[in-house]
Amino acid sequence: MTDAKGYLAKASAELDAPIRRYIQDEAPANLIAASRQYPYAGGKRMRPAMAVAAAKAVGGDGEKAVPLAVAVEYIHNFTLIHDDFMDGDEVRRGMKTVHVQYGAPTAILAGDALFAKAFQIIADLNIPPERAVEVLRYVSQAVWDLARGQQMDVNNEGRIVTEAEYLETIRLKTSVLFAAAAAGGAIVGGASRETVDAVHSYAMALGLGFQIFDDYLGVAGDPSKTGKSVGNDIRKGKCTVMITHAMSHIKDPAALAELRSALGNASATEEQIARARRILEESGSIAYGRAMAEEKAREAAAHLDALPPSAERDFMAALARYAVDREV
Amino acid sequence: MTDAKGYLAKASAELDAPIRRYIQDEAPANLIAASRQYPYAGGKRMRPAMAVAAAKAVGGDGEKAVPLAVAVEYIHNFTLIHDDFMDGDEVRRGMKTVHVQYGAPTAILAGDALFAKAFQIIADLNIPPERAVEVLRYVSQAVWDLARGQQMDVNNEGRIVTEAEYLETIRLKTSVLFAAAAAGGAIVGGASRETVDAVHSYAMALGLGFQIFDDYLGVAGDPSKTGKSVGNDIRKGKCTVMITHAMSHIKDPAALAELRSALGNASATEEQIARARRILEESGSIAYGRAMAEEKAREAAAHLDALPPSAERDFMAALARYAVDREV
Repeated sequence: MTDAKGYLAKASAELDAPIRRYIQDEAPANLIAASRQYPYAGGKRMRPAMAVAAAKAVGGDGEKAVPLAVAVEYIHNFTLIHDDFMDGDEVRRGMKTVHVQYGAPTAILAGDALFAKAFQIIADLNIPPERAVEVLRYVSQAVWDLARGQQMDVNNEGRIVTEAEYLETIRLKTSVLFAAAAAGGAIVGGASRETVDAVHSYAMALGLGFQIFDDYLGVAGDPSKTGKSVGNDIRKGKCTVMITHAMSHIKDPAALAELRSALGNASATEEQIARARRILEESGSIAYGRAMAEEKAREAAAHLDALPPSAERDFMAALARYAVDREV
Repeated sequence: MTDAKGYLAKASAELDAPIRRYIQDEAPANLIAASRQYPYAGGKRMRPAMAVAAAKAVGGDGEKAVPLAVAVEYIHNFTLIHDDFMDGDEVRRGMKTVHVQYGAPTAILAGDALFAKAFQIIADLNIPPERAVEVLRYVSQAVWDLARGQQMDVNNEGRIVTEAEYLETIRLKTSVLFAAAAAGGAIVGGASRETVDAVHSYAMALGLGFQIFDDYLGVAGDPSKTGKSVGNDIRKGKCTVMITHAMSHIKDPAALAELRSALGNASATEEQIARARRILEESGSIAYGRAMAEEKAREAAAHLDALPPSAERDFMAALARYAVDREV
């Protein structure tokens, strides 16, 4: 059985040099340094690893997908820079966030610059031009959707939304770029229309499963492993599928009131958080969230039947399992 | 002799419907409204007009360049939204700026969204894919350069830079997008490599002439026509070619001290501004700025010799004259 974590770690290490290849030393130095900070710092690099794996899994040359992988990672990092500023986050990957380190104007411009660089890289892909245009279509659509998803996230802050609204938000915020990375890799690899669609559907479902499981870890995970306080999401009032489930399934008014008193309450005590968590447990909401994540992962894996057997298909299947079976 | 202003006004009006065609009603509504605000509000629309004119001037179908024109205008507006936020500007085109109207997060996302939409439009251009990739190369390079130019502008604030530094900043901030618009139009129109280069060089020089003349108007223009106080640029300490000229040509220490006391002095009196202007006049710095703008415009027009005679070539030549012979 493929070890998704090990494969990812290896893929991430192999992408290190390419990720450092495309942002040259140019003026002004502060913009260049700010643009490099997140991509150079590592991270899981799931999106670029998926782009390369998809190109190989459809029988193509993985090397040709490496620049696309870099482009997708730059886009992911561009959105992180802008989101960190909007969310007022001060630390990422153990460092000051870009806007804290360089100021808001430079952070906004560094995001814009990474975005532009990604499209410069796509223009230079060593593939037939009709395929490059197809990659451009997926990636540009993904960025449009990312902006919509982040705006929904901003709009939803402090509100209890419906499950459908929440799923649409994470589809746009997380899944579309996974899907564009995977579909783009398949296009670079020379896949047929049908195969590209299958790979796209795989990554879309995987992205949903990944994010829903992330939310699950936020409430049910082991803080000593996730590095996040269990109360974080609850204190921020983050509206996950577990919360929407609880809101429509808890019939006891006292329990509901108790949950609501912790939700979005920045100064909720550890005691209140523990009670809220117990209420979510008893209502079956935590199990519901986990089950939904697992269902999405199974759905993702099923799409891989369209591909011939290969080490990369095995990785993609293992990644779907890993997305919903991890401690961090 | 072609009336550049009349041609521009007509072109801008004709672009109104296409500019309203590509941003559909989608969720979330506030992001869509924020994205539409600047492109729908009009403006000179020189960049998109140039894209369409260039396509026709090289013998191509102007209609096919209309989507590209819209893409370039969206990119221009994306940079305006982000720049207005960075610069803290509160009014544009008689309306509240996007960040004032919708808040900073929505302004940043609306800029990102317009940027993405521009590349979605390029992916759908009705031209051979190898030409679409070539357009992508010019436009994505331009946005990378725009970010560098805006960062230089941020970095230069309140400093006296060299003339070379200033020219590089305005080349990146203004000329590269003019040049990408014109070159992109020529590519859509089916031009040869050499013709694309000529059109690109034309627009690059035009952009420089346009910006240098804008600076000239800021100091020497008639405020009742430009709508800008003559002291604005001086009080902000804007470092133009006139200022760099003055700094290296004024030998009288008293005059130099007087100019410096007004420069970047937000509370300089009308009296101080008038004296600073007189000093710039007497040192020949204002004439120097105007002459450089005119030289760039002549240089721009000379590149048009590569094109066959046409109404659009006449417009492009007239635009070069108009750029440095206007009151607003």
